[in-house]
Amino acid sequence: MNDNIVCIGSKPVMDYGTAIQQVLASSDSVRLKTRGKAISHAVSAAEVTRNRFITDLKGKSINIGTEELKPETGRSRNVSSITIRLKKEVK
Amino acid sequence: MNDNIVCIGSKPVMDYGTAIQQVLASSDSVRLKTRGKAISHAVSAAEVTRNRFITDLKGKSINIGTEELKPETGRSRNVSSITIRLKKEVK
Repeated sequence: MNDNIVCIGSKPVMDYGTAIQQVLASSDSVRLKTRGKAISHAVSAAEVTRNRFITDLKGKSINIGTEELKPETGRSRNVSSITIRLKKEVK
Repeated sequence: MNDNIVCIGSKPVMDYGTAIQQVLASSDSVRLKTRGKAISHAVSAAEVTRNRFITDLKGKSINIGTEELKPETGRSRNVSSITIRLKKEVK
């Protein structure tokens, strides 16, 4: 497991496409992580990478989950999260 | 393949939780489909179902893709899509 992580936020999707490309230039795989509303951005970033930037990616795995956000004041709330792993090889 | 589909939009996530429950009352699996910004809603609906409504779900598979939207006027654009399948059994 020698994974590099790109955290996805609310920047333009193309910015993350470039970041993912840079990681994959020196690594076999990359993990896109985010939570909440930015989940759709993570999916778009993965799709842009696969369809435009690096079209010979062989592997992909997707995981979803729930994280608990605990603010300093007020009650905690749950937020959904996603991790998309893109790999150069199937294994 | 005897799958029932719930299309996820911008309604409150709990509404979809109820719809998913109803489908799973009479079927072994359900597919949540959506595209664009509602992708994060689909992930939340799946997580709410798994964590609160039907906690003994055994299987889950997630697929992402790109769809081309062709408006009647103007140029077409690509939008990301997601399909989350929840299953009562592993297979």
